[in-house]
Amino acid sequence: MADAGIVLFAHGARDRRWAEPFEQLRERLRARRPDLAIELAFLEHMSPDLAEAATALAARGVRNVRVVPLFFGRGGHLRNDFPLEVTRAQAAAPAIMFEIVEAAGEDPAVLDALADFALSGLA
Amino acid sequence: MADAGIVLFAHGARDRRWAEPFEQLRERLRARRPDLAIELAFLEHMSPDLAEAATALAARGVRNVRVVPLFFGRGGHLRNDFPLEVTRAQAAAPAIMFEIVEAAGEDPAVLDALADFALSGLA
Repeated sequence: MADAGIVLFAHGARDRRWAEPFEQLRERLRARRPDLAIELAFLEHMSPDLAEAATALAARGVRNVRVVPLFFGRGGHLRNDFPLEVTRAQAAAPAIMFEIVEAAGEDPAVLDALADFALSGLA
Repeated sequence: MADAGIVLFAHGARDRRWAEPFEQLRERLRARRPDLAIELAFLEHMSPDLAEAATALAARGVRNVRVVPLFFGRGGHLRNDFPLEVTRAQAAAPAIMFEIVEAAGEDPAVLDALADFALSGLA
């Protein structure tokens, strides 16, 4: 049983298909790290939210959870809403130790991959 | 004078700082490809919109523009709003030939970079 996990935290959308890249990412991570519990959580429109995801992980015995914000930029959602979601999740799952990392869009290697993508196949 | 360019098309947000990763990406692309015109455009909250960006590029003599949607998932914004923005941009800048590529979040190498980021430093 995994005692550590990752929650991929994304915005959410009304269109169910919006989540497909996040589901793909979750599957990639599960394949790479079967020893970790890997789940998605959403700020709005989709479930579970972060508190629900944390509660489910705690019930499975997970004690250390890294929360990865799958956002490009840090606007109101990450600066204001996200800390409140973390506070709610901590209250809902007090046994869990959370590690919060920066937004994915602030990672230099992610920016490099985006730059490669933007230029791919251009003469 | 560049006759080809890239518009990085992002959602936009009320908080000006939200755009920082996109500005960084634009600067990286300009450094890598000084022969191309590289600009940002936004769906909402920020300017320019896609039609304004296309008009400005056309005025500079740019004739071929790749539009790169910097979105993770394809929900209503990309499925419904984005095609309308492209239609408006084409009407505003009829001299430009647009190339529309898939959402950044659907690129396997971007997903790999996100996976590496999610796992970075984990034991």
